[in-house]
Amino acid sequence: MSLIVQKFGGSSVSDADGIRRVARRVAETRNAGNDVVVVVSAMGDTTDDLLDLANEVTRKPPARELDMLLTAGERISMALLAMATSEVGVPAQSFTGSQAGMITDGDHGAAKLVEVNPLRVREALDAGNIAIIAGFQGVHRSTKDITTLGRGGSDTTAVALAAALNADVCEIYSDVDGVYTADPRIVPSAQKLDRVSSEEMLELAANGAKILHLRCVEYARRFNVPLHVRSSFSHNEGTWVMPTPHENFTPQKEIPLEQPLISGIAHDRTQAKITVVGVPDRPGIASRIFRLLADSKVNVDMIVQNVSTGDRPLTDLSFTLDESQGDLAMNLLRAAEEKIGYTSLDYDDQVGKISLVGAGMKTNTGVSFKFFQALAQADINVDMISTSEVRLSVITDVRKLDTAVRALHTAFGLDADSEATVHGGTGR
Amino acid sequence: MSLIVQKFGGSSVSDADGIRRVARRVAETRNAGNDVVVVVSAMGDTTDDLLDLANEVTRKPPARELDMLLTAGERISMALLAMATSEVGVPAQSFTGSQAGMITDGDHGAAKLVEVNPLRVREALDAGNIAIIAGFQGVHRSTKDITTLGRGGSDTTAVALAAALNADVCEIYSDVDGVYTADPRIVPSAQKLDRVSSEEMLELAANGAKILHLRCVEYARRFNVPLHVRSSFSHNEGTWVMPTPHENFTPQKEIPLEQPLISGIAHDRTQAKITVVGVPDRPGIASRIFRLLADSKVNVDMIVQNVSTGDRPLTDLSFTLDESQGDLAMNLLRAAEEKIGYTSLDYDDQVGKISLVGAGMKTNTGVSFKFFQALAQADINVDMISTSEVRLSVITDVRKLDTAVRALHTAFGLDADSEATVHGGTGR
Repeated sequence: MSLIVQKFGGSSVSDADGIRRVARRVAETRNAGNDVVVVVSAMGDTTDDLLDLANEVTRKPPARELDMLLTAGERISMALLAMATSEVGVPAQSFTGSQAGMITDGDHGAAKLVEVNPLRVREALDAGNIAIIAGFQGVHRSTKDITTLGRGGSDTTAVALAAALNADVCEIYSDVDGVYTADPRIVPSAQKLDRVSSEEMLELAANGAKILHLRCVEYARRFNVPLHVRSSFSHNEGTWVMPTPHENFTPQKEIPLEQPLISGIAHDRTQAKITVVGVPDRPGIASRIFRLLADSKVNVDMIVQNVSTGDRPLTDLSFTLDESQGDLAMNLLRAAEEKIGYTSLDYDDQVGKISLVGAGMKTNTGVSFKFFQALAQADINVDMISTSEVRLSVITDVRKLDTAVRALHTAFGLDADSEATVHGGTGR
Repeated sequence: MSLIVQKFGGSSVSDADGIRRVARRVAETRNAGNDVVVVVSAMGDTTDDLLDLANEVTRKPPARELDMLLTAGERISMALLAMATSEVGVPAQSFTGSQAGMITDGDHGAAKLVEVNPLRVREALDAGNIAIIAGFQGVHRSTKDITTLGRGGSDTTAVALAAALNADVCEIYSDVDGVYTADPRIVPSAQKLDRVSSEEMLELAANGAKILHLRCVEYARRFNVPLHVRSSFSHNEGTWVMPTPHENFTPQKEIPLEQPLISGIAHDRTQAKITVVGVPDRPGIASRIFRLLADSKVNVDMIVQNVSTGDRPLTDLSFTLDESQGDLAMNLLRAAEEKIGYTSLDYDDQVGKISLVGAGMKTNTGVSFKFFQALAQADINVDMISTSEVRLSVITDVRKLDTAVRALHTAFGLDADSEATVHGGTGR
C-alpha cells in the first residue's frame, strides 16, 4: 500500500461536475489500495471573485483580513470534494491549512512554511478516511492568525505534506498531461517528457514553464519528494520529476538508458528591462542600486553592465525583472536619483526570455553554437545572455518569442512526429 | 466607556454597499468612545448558494463537511467588514467562531455552546481594535471539528459573547426598528414597544415573532444580558428587552410608570396539527406517543385529548408542531402503528397559531373574555387553546390568521394613530 498525495488546481474543480470528476479519480486511487491525501485549490474564479469584493469595500485591504477572506475559497472546495467522495462511497474528512498543521511565518499574502505537523491528517488516514486539505493556507506560529502562502501555494502545500507524511509520490494534476519540451500552444510538435531531473525542472519553472511553481520544485528537491505531473482528464502517465538521489523511489516506468541531452525550451513573456543610463563607473554604484531593489524585495534576474571607455567614466547598467515589479523598481530608482547619480532611466516591457534547459549544457560545446545559429537564422536579435549548469537563457523582443521557441525546438531535434493534444481551456 | 456587542444579519450585509454602511455604523459607535464587538452573518444569499452547491455534488452531505462548507459564508462577510471598518479609519480584526472561543458539543448543524472563551477577542479590544466575529459557528470541544449552531445561531453568538465579555448591551440589528405589538405587514397600525420583559419576549419569540430567536432570548435572560433590538437603517431607539432582575443595567430611556398590560400579538403560520384517531384511552398511551416523538427530537407544542365516554374506550389525541417536522412525525407514528394501536392518522397543515402576550394575563379575568369575544365577532373558530403566565394562544384556520391578528390588535387597544414604517425587504 502506498501513500499518495494528489493536488488538484482550481480549473479541475471549477464546478460541481469538476468536483465529482475529481472525487471519482480520488476514489479510484483509494480503491486501488492506497492511502490518499488530497490538496485542493479554490474553485475556478472564486479567488478573483473574493478579490473583487475586497476591492469594492476598500482600496487597500489589510493583509491579515485579505488572507482571512481568500482562505474561504479552499474551504468551500475542500468541503464539497469531501461530500462528493463520500457520495461515491469513500469516506473523507476535510482540513483547513491550520487544522492540517501548516505552520507559517507572519508574512500575510506570501507566508513561508516553518513547520508541518499533519497529526490530524495522519489520524484521518489511520481511521480509513481520505484526507482533503485546503491548499495555499496556513496559520502563523505565534499569533495564530490565518495566512496564505502566495503564488504556487497549493503546489507547495501538497509537496510539504508529501514530505511530512513520507508519501511515496506527490501527484500534481492539471489540464495538461505533463511537462513538454516547449509550450504545445506555440510548438504543436512539442513532446511530453517522461522524466526530468529536479535541477532541469527548477530551471524550466524559474524560466517561464508555468506547469509547476519554482517554489514547489525547490521544496520537492530539498525533501526528495518524487513529483508526478499529470492530467486530471486522462489516466496517461505524465512526467516524473526525479529527485536526485532518492534511494527509496521506484518509478512505475523503466528509466530510459539514453536520456536526451535537452529537456525543453521555456519562455517567459512577463519580463521587463530597466536601463540606468549614465551611472558613474566606479566600485559600489552597482551594489548600491541592487541593495536598494533587494530591500524592497524586487527580484532582479539578468544583469548587464556596459564597459566604459577611459575618457567617459560613465556606464549603462541594464537588468531584467518580472514586469509586475516594474513600477515598484522604477519608483525606487527615481526616488534615489541623487544618491545614485544617473543621467536617465529607460523602461522596456516589450522583452521576453527564452531558455534552453538540459543536462550537460556547459560540457557540450556544440550546444551554444547551435543555439545562437538557430536564432540568427530566424533573424532574432539577442539582447542579454545568462547561463547555468543546465540552462542557457537570452532576452529578446517579446514579439519574436514564439518564432524563437519554434526555431530552437526544431534545431535541437525536439519535434515529435505528431501534434500534442492539449485538454481543457487555458492550456499549460 | 461601554462595551457594546452589535449583531448584523445577512440582509444588513447583502452586498458591498451594505457592508460599508454597517462599517460606518460600527465606527460611529467606536468613535463615541465605546469598545465594540461585532457579530456578523453570511452575506445575503451566500448560505443558500453554498447549500445549492452541496446539493449538486451529493444527495446527503456529511454533517461535518456541511458545517465546514457553510462556515465559509461568515468568514467572507467578517473579513470584508474588517476591511471596510479599516477603510473608515477604525482598525479591526476578524475572528472565526473557533478563534473567538465558541466551544460547542459535536451536534453538527445544531451544535450547542458548552463554553465561551473569548480570549483573543479581549486581546483585540485591549489593543484598540474592533473585534468582528463570525456568527453561527463554533468548534467541537474534543475533536476540534468546526460546528454550526443552527437556527438563530448568529443571535446566540452575539448574546453569548456579550455574556462572556460582560458587555453593557447586546444590540441586534435588522431591517425593522424594534419589536412591534403585531407584525406591521398585517397590522399597519402596530406600535413599536419601547421595552418588553424577557418573559414576554420569550413568549413572543416562541410563538411566531421572527425578530429574535427563542434561543437567543433564553440565553440573554439566563445571563442577564440587556438586548436592544433596532434597525441598521436608522438611529432611532429600538426595543429594549429587559432582563429581570439586572442590577447593573441602566437603560438609556426612563422606564414608563404605567406599562401597558398587553405587549403584543404574535402569530405563526408554520404550524401543523396531527390527530391520532382512535387510541385506547388508558394510562401510558399518550406518554408512549410523545416519548416516541421526543426521541427523534420532534418538538410538540399544544396537546388536546378528547374525553372518551364509558361505552367507547377509544379517544382522539391531537397535537401541534412546526410543519417542518410534520413528515418526520407522521413517519414515526406510521412505523409505530402496532405498538400504539390507533385507528387512523390525520394531518392538517392549514392551521396557524395566534398568541396574545402580556404581563398579568392570568390575574386579569377580563383578558380571556375580551380575547374570545373579539375572535367570535370576527367569525373565527378556535381549535385548540393553551396558556401561560404571560400568554394566551389559540390554533385556528391559517387562512383566518391575519383577520384574527387585526381583530385582537384593535380589541386590546394596541392600534396607533399612524401607520408603522417598515424599512428594507422582508419586514420582520
